[in-house]
Amino acid sequence: MSFTYHRTIHFKDTDAAGVVYFSNALNICHEAYEALLEALRIDLKRYFSGQDLAVPIVHAEIDFMRPMYCGDQIYVALSGTLQLENSFTLKYEIYQNDLESDKPIAVASTRHVAIDPLTRKRSALPSELLQWLAVK
Amino acid sequence: MSFTYHRTIHFKDTDAAGVVYFSNALNICHEAYEALLEALRIDLKRYFSGQDLAVPIVHAEIDFMRPMYCGDQIYVALSGTLQLENSFTLKYEIYQNDLESDKPIAVASTRHVAIDPLTRKRSALPSELLQWLAVK
Amino acid sequence: MSFTYHRTIHFKDTDAAGVVYFSNALNICHEAYEALLEALRIDLKRYFSGQDLAVPIVHAEIDFMRPMYCGDQIYVALSGTLQLENSFTLKYEIYQNDLESDKPIAVASTRHVAIDPLTRKRSALPSELLQWLAVK
Amino acid sequence: MSFTYHRTIHFKDTDAAGVVYFSNALNICHEAYEALLEALRIDLKRYFSGQDLAVPIVHAEIDFMRPMYCGDQIYVALSGTLQLENSFTLKYEIYQNDLESDKPIAVASTRHVAIDPLTRKRSALPSELLQWLAVK
Repeated sequence: MSFTYHRTIHFKDTDAAGVVYFSNALNICHEAYEALLEALRIDLKRYFSGQDLAVPIVHAEIDFMRPMYCGDQIYVALSGTLQLENSFTLKYEIYQNDLESDKPIAVASTRHVAIDPLTRKRSALPSELLQWLAVK
Repeated sequence: MSFTYHRTIHFKDTDAAGVVYFSNALNICHEAYEALLEALRIDLKRYFSGQDLAVPIVHAEIDFMRPMYCGDQIYVALSGTLQLENSFTLKYEIYQNDLESDKPIAVASTRHVAIDPLTRKRSALPSELLQWLAVK
Repeated sequence: MSFTYHRTIHFKDTDAAGVVYFSNALNICHEAYEALLEALRIDLKRYFSGQDLAVPIVHAEIDFMRPMYCGDQIYVALSGTLQLENSFTLKYEIYQNDLESDKPIAVASTRHVAIDPLTRKRSALPSELLQWLAVK
Repeated sequence: MSFTYHRTIHFKDTDAAGVVYFSNALNICHEAYEALLEALRIDLKRYFSGQDLAVPIVHAEIDFMRPMYCGDQIYVALSGTLQLENSFTLKYEIYQNDLESDKPIAVASTRHVAIDPLTRKRSALPSELLQWLAVK
């Protein structure tokens, strides 16, 4: 039960060195996470408003193997791991469509903790997400 | 020959007021422009590198009628007008999918001038783009 | 009573054409607006949360006369005009420090309307901002 | 020889959860790196154009201890470590000015490798940066 997100590299993603600016690659990973939530029929507006539940990112990291250019067709292979019942890690492998190689051009991960926004104590994850993480 | 671009509003597009940050709506318009160029089979990497040809935006403007939220499904109706042979204006009407109203939630435009990056003199537009603008 | 905001062009502001991406220039203008509010001792977190009061941008526009590059030292000359009692327009003139010319390299404006976030009816502006706009 | 960079959190940095969007914290770290290069009198436009020399980020990571809000006054304490002669790691500790605690609210690092953009082989770092890294 992995999840795949397709994307074209936009001009806005690039910088004056002609390639994707490093933190913009993490934005693309977050888009993949949002697409997963949408596929799980979780209400994005509510989920991300942080009103009933907040699921902040407590750690993020990324490794770059090859640069990405404007117009590149890429896809993100997303997988997840449940850590305790209120925390999960997502792993993102970014591949370039046209590349013959089967190696990712970047690999990233984010760790998320579900908390109650008022008490700041740990809170339960949405059941749909919990289930997706459990199946994996 | 208008062109339509579909998009989900990402969390990154929003700000602490809970809605899309104003200039990010212009980014979405630019994505629609890039999708048009791609559909016209123009090489995006080359077109935007500004090496053979530069097509800088000399004017941009946007009006907001309604806010956009994370997860909203929107589409951009893109049309263009050729102004002289080296300059064109793109007009973007942003609509929300679920809205019963047939009125756009935002309307934007950008004006572009094709120049030779070395001499800074006006230069010819790619023929595919010129043709699309002429038909309209 | 105009207001000046100084800024270095960051790498993140630029795109693969080697210059500032068009909508990022509007971000810099918004930073100047925030610096003004801060100078007027308005609480930024509260002002921009949109909880008591929302002051959305209903129109924005920008003209570019010259490109900006990473590392450029620029400043924004900000002035404002009150339009009715719940609406104002800010005008931004962007200048490059090292340029001998006294002409701006970009000129932008934004129009803002103060509304009550619950009723969506027009609301009063903070008195400090109202005063600054009135003096001008 | 550590280096300190001051910054106000901008509205653009925030998202619909009301706090700084995770990858924007890495942008602020990169601004601190640019401010260091500027202090070392390295030409930013040339350094980041990637024409003579490219210094891509090959790894980035960040841990968040507390959220940041629009208007927060923060500073980044930047330190660096030379790894071999063509590679270095920068460490960023982000502190909030008003916080009594002496603990950082976020900690990040980036690893950079200097390469020749044509041959893609390792290349020499600018002497000013090499010296700053060596002294530390």
